[in-house]
Amino acid sequence: MNESLAYIAKEQKELSLLGGISALLGWDQMTYMPPRGIQERSDQMAYLARHMHERIISDTLYHHLTALTNDQTLATLPDHDQHVVRRLKKDVDKARKVPPAFTEKLSKTTALAYNAWQDARAHNTYKEFAPHLQHIIELERQYCDYIRLPGPPYNSLLDDYEEGMTVDTLTHEFHILHPKLTTMLEAITATDRYATQRPLQDTIPTAQQQSLSTQLLHLMNLPPEETRLDVSTHPFTTTMGDEDVRITTNYERDGPLFAFFSTMHEAGHALYELGLPKGVYQDTVISDAPSLGIHESQSRFWENMIGRNRQFWAYFYPRFQTTAPAYFQKTTLNEWYRAVNLVRPSLIRIEADELTYCLHVILRFELELELIDEKITVNELPRAWNEKMQEFLGITPTTDTDGVLQDMHWSGGDFGYFPTYAIGSIYAAQLFDAITRDLPSLDQDLTNGHLPPILQWLRDHVHQYGRLYTADEIITRACGRGLDSHIYVNYLKNKYYALYDV
Amino acid sequence: MNESLAYIAKEQKELSLLGGISALLGWDQMTYMPPRGIQERSDQMAYLARHMHERIISDTLYHHLTALTNDQTLATLPDHDQHVVRRLKKDVDKARKVPPAFTEKLSKTTALAYNAWQDARAHNTYKEFAPHLQHIIELERQYCDYIRLPGPPYNSLLDDYEEGMTVDTLTHEFHILHPKLTTMLEAITATDRYATQRPLQDTIPTAQQQSLSTQLLHLMNLPPEETRLDVSTHPFTTTMGDEDVRITTNYERDGPLFAFFSTMHEAGHALYELGLPKGVYQDTVISDAPSLGIHESQSRFWENMIGRNRQFWAYFYPRFQTTAPAYFQKTTLNEWYRAVNLVRPSLIRIEADELTYCLHVILRFELELELIDEKITVNELPRAWNEKMQEFLGITPTTDTDGVLQDMHWSGGDFGYFPTYAIGSIYAAQLFDAITRDLPSLDQDLTNGHLPPILQWLRDHVHQYGRLYTADEIITRACGRGLDSHIYVNYLKNKYYALYDV
Repeated sequence: MNESLAYIAKEQKELSLLGGISALLGWDQMTYMPPRGIQERSDQMAYLARHMHERIISDTLYHHLTALTNDQTLATLPDHDQHVVRRLKKDVDKARKVPPAFTEKLSKTTALAYNAWQDARAHNTYKEFAPHLQHIIELERQYCDYIRLPGPPYNSLLDDYEEGMTVDTLTHEFHILHPKLTTMLEAITATDRYATQRPLQDTIPTAQQQSLSTQLLHLMNLPPEETRLDVSTHPFTTTMGDEDVRITTNYERDGPLFAFFSTMHEAGHALYELGLPKGVYQDTVISDAPSLGIHESQSRFWENMIGRNRQFWAYFYPRFQTTAPAYFQKTTLNEWYRAVNLVRPSLIRIEADELTYCLHVILRFELELELIDEKITVNELPRAWNEKMQEFLGITPTTDTDGVLQDMHWSGGDFGYFPTYAIGSIYAAQLFDAITRDLPSLDQDLTNGHLPPILQWLRDHVHQYGRLYTADEIITRACGRGLDSHIYVNYLKNKYYALYDV
Repeated sequence: MNESLAYIAKEQKELSLLGGISALLGWDQMTYMPPRGIQERSDQMAYLARHMHERIISDTLYHHLTALTNDQTLATLPDHDQHVVRRLKKDVDKARKVPPAFTEKLSKTTALAYNAWQDARAHNTYKEFAPHLQHIIELERQYCDYIRLPGPPYNSLLDDYEEGMTVDTLTHEFHILHPKLTTMLEAITATDRYATQRPLQDTIPTAQQQSLSTQLLHLMNLPPEETRLDVSTHPFTTTMGDEDVRITTNYERDGPLFAFFSTMHEAGHALYELGLPKGVYQDTVISDAPSLGIHESQSRFWENMIGRNRQFWAYFYPRFQTTAPAYFQKTTLNEWYRAVNLVRPSLIRIEADELTYCLHVILRFELELELIDEKITVNELPRAWNEKMQEFLGITPTTDTDGVLQDMHWSGGDFGYFPTYAIGSIYAAQLFDAITRDLPSLDQDLTNGHLPPILQWLRDHVHQYGRLYTADEIITRACGRGLDSHIYVNYLKNKYYALYDV
């Protein structure tokens, strides 16, 4: 084997091992770690992050990659090696633009900011968090200076989460999506049904919620010997290895359905992780998601297109009633289907219904852009947030904890991340549109609780490619065109106008 | 700061972080990891082990250590730095005797052997395991050749677990202990009380066992914000960080008391880990146990000297009765005290009573010595085991699973480990003898369930030293003399002759 190829194979394998180890440290921190373990844990995670970054930007790795790409060698390699080398070279080139000292500074700044954010949330004191946010935004701008993609600085932030995505494209899509969502929301809120519908008030005991989640994971064919379901404050999915992907939920928050749908959402992420390419691509940069939008398309697809689907509940609602009999005997399937699709403008993004969800995301995108472009200051942010909430959703948070402080992303320096939630939602609708055409038996399969054909379709059209193609290429291959909000708007309109008799 | 000192401080800190990370990987494997995560987990653990070994034997570290120890520098350093440098130099010198290729070969051999051992246990087929054991013994001999301590080769194995311990010393002690244990056992088994006593047959539901373990940990002052109690097949203690020490138990094996006493045993280990020196010794080689015998003395002390103590149960038995009322209402405190101290020769070491326990250990020590010295072959081992069981305890296992295959140590290459169980038991009795003299209120404190003075005494006399002294020095300081089986024999005789009216 070519010496350089052997070297990059070994580096990727060890970086993959280190990635799995880091994932375990993070999972444990969020699930089982005793509280005072946090100091040592932070040091362990920072150490691994620095070590991994040093290896990605190491001159030895760079030397081997350039040896493979600069001369005629590349064309002589098998196709799969060419893909790996090109992909890794691109990652390395980008990582090497950023000095290690900067990465360390950002990591330390966000560690402090995360604590400050938690305190500020607990005390509803935005001003505790503001100086940290200010510092982070300055570092984000500096990061854009290092990366320097064409177009506005924010493009360099977007690219980390959604490679190739630009402010132009997003602005274009959101200019379609935003007014359509507003129109639909106005039409729905004007109906009698909206005026008379009430959210579910029941609570389901934890043991029964756990049973429902377990039944759901079984139905979705999540392999129990390769996965776990645990509890954390915020649900998440994480990957320790090709055959060790774990999800979490929370049985104690936000009404009787939160745990069920969050389990379904995270299981969508987990099925994607488990379906990423193996074989020649195992332990390579190819065996990963091309973008967060694609990843989110999988979770949103299962949570909304399947989990809030009339046919799915034809199968699953009787099981719900059997498992939690005290709670749902009075509710008919039709009432239930309406209940799980209740539209109601709300303050908190992760509790938002399917229709209003993207308005929360567009709000954050617009604010991020203004912050990075210095069009608003950190001190002006809470007011700007509240004004946009009023404008977009007709409600204003009474506290910053329920407003500008609700999400952890900014404390982590994750500017450019939020838009992927909307991209994922749009992609999910496009995939649902395509699968509906490809699988004529879809409705019948759902009614029978027979989900393997759905998973297989996602494996064939999305999972198996990993990073072999870009997000845009994968969606174009699967659906006939790239990111397209019109399809999402049509999906929402057909579903919700029927639900609300508009 | 001296450049070499700064370097070794950083290396020790990072090795300490890596040690905590490895501990988490192991803990997760034994508690929560989905079964198919094992392949990637093995790779992760092997990678970290190799990486840590490479750093310990690195020429750079060696260079800095010799710079500090070879010239007049050492004497100019503060005392605590001198201790750290000397201790680390000793560890490094030993580690550098062993070629990395050997370490890797041993690690791969034991990984395969562990699987073979599990299979052989499941199928009761010793011959599946025998070739692996043969290979391991050859590697153990080779290891002795690298280390070459004075005396028989087995000294080099002992030293890894009990620094400075020799075959001569152990043989001397076991020649005292063995006949005394046999005499006591014969005297006890001849009594009417022995003939009529029956082991507890009740089972306690898991939830009630959990409650009892939790009450116990609270009573022992194990800080809940720095510890956890989970479930694994074999109970263990592990340390992820100075403020993150975790223990496990098992509620489903070996009668109604296994979980309670295993929790107390592991909590003894955990209290020791949490009491190791901090401050100037934090994240240095000093903040560790000087030997496994000392570590085991802490667990055995809590499990037996406290947990099987009449006064302890005067306090705790009513709580036991309240928590598990269906099971113990008919049993008086006196009957209960006898029940938790039941003597009964048995096949399985980890289920053995306090009196017969060390006979199991001496058996393994003698067999290990004969294997390493080529006095018996691997094929002869099962028969030798069974004959010794008959000779020592008067019983013969009907299967190898309950005999020679019962412990995992040999599959892990841990030759020289078993004797530390006996050393720990002897040390525990010596510490109990000393604390009884030092704390006149001990019995009263136990009756009141007031355990902090006991923990404080252990902190002052054992925990705080870490590796600042050897095991022998610590015991000599605390008890007035080093390892002494006579004290253990007296302790057992006083306790068990009274219990059985001998």
